[in-house]
Amino acid sequence: MQFFNKTAPIGIFDSGIGGLTVVKKILSMLPNEKIIYFGDTARVPYGSKSNSTVIEYANQDAKFLYKKNVKLIIVACNTVSSVALDNLREQFDIPIIGMIEPGAKYALSKTKNGKIGVIGTHSTINNQAYSKKLKQLNGDVEIFEKACPLFVPLAEEGWIDRKATKLIAEEYLEELIEREIDTLVLGCTHYPVLTEIIQKVMGPEVTLIDSGTAAALEVEDYLNGIGLRNDSSQIGKHQYYVSDLPSKFKIIAERFLGTTLDHIEKIDIDQIIKS
Amino acid sequence: MQFFNKTAPIGIFDSGIGGLTVVKKILSMLPNEKIIYFGDTARVPYGSKSNSTVIEYANQDAKFLYKKNVKLIIVACNTVSSVALDNLREQFDIPIIGMIEPGAKYALSKTKNGKIGVIGTHSTINNQAYSKKLKQLNGDVEIFEKACPLFVPLAEEGWIDRKATKLIAEEYLEELIEREIDTLVLGCTHYPVLTEIIQKVMGPEVTLIDSGTAAALEVEDYLNGIGLRNDSSQIGKHQYYVSDLPSKFKIIAERFLGTTLDHIEKIDIDQIIKS
Repeated sequence: MQFFNKTAPIGIFDSGIGGLTVVKKILSMLPNEKIIYFGDTARVPYGSKSNSTVIEYANQDAKFLYKKNVKLIIVACNTVSSVALDNLREQFDIPIIGMIEPGAKYALSKTKNGKIGVIGTHSTINNQAYSKKLKQLNGDVEIFEKACPLFVPLAEEGWIDRKATKLIAEEYLEELIEREIDTLVLGCTHYPVLTEIIQKVMGPEVTLIDSGTAAALEVEDYLNGIGLRNDSSQIGKHQYYVSDLPSKFKIIAERFLGTTLDHIEKIDIDQIIKS
Repeated sequence: MQFFNKTAPIGIFDSGIGGLTVVKKILSMLPNEKIIYFGDTARVPYGSKSNSTVIEYANQDAKFLYKKNVKLIIVACNTVSSVALDNLREQFDIPIIGMIEPGAKYALSKTKNGKIGVIGTHSTINNQAYSKKLKQLNGDVEIFEKACPLFVPLAEEGWIDRKATKLIAEEYLEELIEREIDTLVLGCTHYPVLTEIIQKVMGPEVTLIDSGTAAALEVEDYLNGIGLRNDSSQIGKHQYYVSDLPSKFKIIAERFLGTTLDHIEKIDIDQIIKS
């Protein structure tokens, strides 16, 4: 087991930029923590890949962070959380926090009519990750799931307020509206980028659950509970790594986080595969 | 140099399913040829990646086909053709045919007013692959290029006749219509899947150039010229390989090609990387 150290960084990984919605929450809720982020931008997206491929890629991503001596890893990707979490926990002897359980708990705390919708990638929805977890936590709720695969490229392209995006959202969300859900889990870390349009289509009565916010709350609780929260007033520099296109990532990340990146570096994923 | 053999197969690769539009043309125009296809479905899409990553992936894809003793390789991907063709030709001692030059020649043979539009991925358009080639072949034409990145996920999702797709096409193609082009190069092998909607938006006067058709004509000419066309009446079985989700690929490919796949197999790309 790695030596646990309060001042050690938190590792966060995702297939690409989606995990930044989680980083943003961690930065605001846990401002003393140092973050090491890895976005696998060379192999994005994960949501349309097979479980075995996602598990393989997730292990490589986690290995990269593990070698940086992080004190815990946040899997800031619902696809990976839904298929690879158990496997990652077997492979690595540090705490690994995913998106599904925190998101499910948070949704249950918000629903009043017990009708919860979940949207995500093909992979997350096909694996029924949220409905299994929600049912396990509370057998009485009704769950309606819908894959919204085009939301990832729309978010990556920055099409956040276009007519076409609204039309696509209306088509995807129609059946969830008909089911009269009062709570909708954004089960993909890209989707908060499209919050405004999704809220408009669903109507103001429906509560949107950002799985990243829920996960950040869980991380906060966890670090407090185990006494590993960084209480140093000297915040280290955050480090961002990607497997491709660091300059594109820098632009998107700085716009999204509203801050300059201290350190952004491209790494060669083949070196991790061979190591 | 590999031993050239008329009955050796033709190797074709792409990042995913897009190259099937080229396979379809080869099957109908060169029915005696045996095809070995590789779709890198674990790492699709290529069009939003950096040149260096695309070159690295393309070399791995070509290495896989080369080891199958193919007599030539068709790069059935405009992104790879636009950034990696020279590098591939240096690395492998067999003929390698890309999409750009055949597509450009074909477009020049069709235009009457000398105004040619080109649509493709971010990578193909940023590299100005078609405009450089068109200018080199005929300095007098006017070229208007436009990246249409959302067309790939729309084609992969089968959204070929939706309102949203038409709206996105209208937005992308508006400026090409204003420029009064009479010829439009579909500079991505996915785009022929959306031919109907693109033709509707552009209007019946505009000639669409399928770069796959153009490349198939080039391959036919080449094989005839060098005497390597397969004249055996005994056609071998075609082989299809993918790096992920063979069953999903099989369904899409059989629907698209209108035939049953003889042989479909998943290969582990990490083994090629390590080899």
